[in-house]
Amino acid sequence: MKNIVLRLMYDGKAYHGFQRQKNGVTIQEKIEDAIFEITGERTPLIGCSRTDAGVHAKSYVAMFASDSEIPMVQLPKALNSALPDDIRVMQSKIGPEDFHPIFSALEKTYEYTIINRRYNNVFLRDYAWFYPIPLSVERMQKASGYFIGEHDFAAFMAAGGTAKTSVRHVKNLSVTEEDGAIKIRITANGFLYNMVRIITGTLVYVGNGKLEPEDIKGIILSKDRRRAGMTAPPEGLMLVSTVYPDFTFEEI
Amino acid sequence: MKNIVLRLMYDGKAYHGFQRQKNGVTIQEKIEDAIFEITGERTPLIGCSRTDAGVHAKSYVAMFASDSEIPMVQLPKALNSALPDDIRVMQSKIGPEDFHPIFSALEKTYEYTIINRRYNNVFLRDYAWFYPIPLSVERMQKASGYFIGEHDFAAFMAAGGTAKTSVRHVKNLSVTEEDGAIKIRITANGFLYNMVRIITGTLVYVGNGKLEPEDIKGIILSKDRRRAGMTAPPEGLMLVSTVYPDFTFEEI
Repeated sequence: MKNIVLRLMYDGKAYHGFQRQKNGVTIQEKIEDAIFEITGERTPLIGCSRTDAGVHAKSYVAMFASDSEIPMVQLPKALNSALPDDIRVMQSKIGPEDFHPIFSALEKTYEYTIINRRYNNVFLRDYAWFYPIPLSVERMQKASGYFIGEHDFAAFMAAGGTAKTSVRHVKNLSVTEEDGAIKIRITANGFLYNMVRIITGTLVYVGNGKLEPEDIKGIILSKDRRRAGMTAPPEGLMLVSTVYPDFTFEEI
Repeated sequence: MKNIVLRLMYDGKAYHGFQRQKNGVTIQEKIEDAIFEITGERTPLIGCSRTDAGVHAKSYVAMFASDSEIPMVQLPKALNSALPDDIRVMQSKIGPEDFHPIFSALEKTYEYTIINRRYNNVFLRDYAWFYPIPLSVERMQKASGYFIGEHDFAAFMAAGGTAKTSVRHVKNLSVTEEDGAIKIRITANGFLYNMVRIITGTLVYVGNGKLEPEDIKGIILSKDRRRAGMTAPPEGLMLVSTVYPDFTFEEI
């Protein structure tokens, strides 16, 4: 048995998230079906993140154990032939014996896009949150600094998570604006359930004046979900990258 | 009667092009219906370009004559409420008395996107030509210079056009590459039917080695459509801007 690691890209619009479930088609199910079609093996695919319904991934790492002899250089093409065109396997590679897409990760980066102008960008209507009320990017940038560092992010966690601790280390958080699109980019050693979407919703409350940038400090300390902002909708969220200490895909 | 000029953005995926026709839903028809719903006027909408089925526009100028008293600042919102979400009216403004979206134009710019890597970018599958065979951007850049200037572009014109002359002035043509996406950007005083898509198909032939960069000169001089490359598919084409000497929309 070897660990086959895949680098995926998917448009989450048509799916009920990554993780297999009874009511709705998921990314995991589609790929497990493709693996079965190509290798004849019914094997569970372990993902690097439980992305919600409608959330997208530019680069998503997943792994399955396999006895298949198919060469790694041929596997992406073979799997893609069995997958719908909104899911692509970009690369595949044998991983370390003890590799785990979630537990081996050093850090992950997500990007959240907000269209902040009077009318939506038609090309991003499934890939961004359309928010027409003017937001102050400067205020959002000021607020972003308070998130950086190791904190207990209990106030930014939705019910339903399975994490043992709500302490996470946010290594970077940037807010940039170009052409009416605000991008929030967050890198952390791990994320709580809905953490990026709640941080985004809270930054939007700072941008529209409902909260002050300095309020973030107290909200974090309170560990009280009710004091943070709304949960931003899923379609603006994109998993951008996951970094491992002992494993990497070549640049393509 | 006044000339009301609209700046539109649309995703062409679901439409049979801009221009009204019997077999298929068009952008023109959708907007004329919205104008009727808002103003009660059945009036023809004149567009700046006859975009084909599947072609997109980031900024498209269209005009209609109207007696409506609706303030310009309210018109986009009103029309958008009557339009599907893949067409947006971004701005509206009273135009000069003799304004015509095509004949008044000084220049137009189109952008064509090619995904040139092994597997498609799932987010651009309706907005780019997926071409997995490696292309030499350097060769394409070398070829691009031959198009610039005033030439008879008869070799780059599809049958079915209505232009009186096939002489056009290409003011700029750039080929750039980023992250596996090749972008061809062309500015000209006007375009023949399918001109950008045939130029793109010809540049692709240069990129894959079927033609040499220097061949472009002879192909232009031949005025022979059969010597140029294939017509690139519509989904990669986007109208980016149209410039008028006496009319402009404010930056938004």
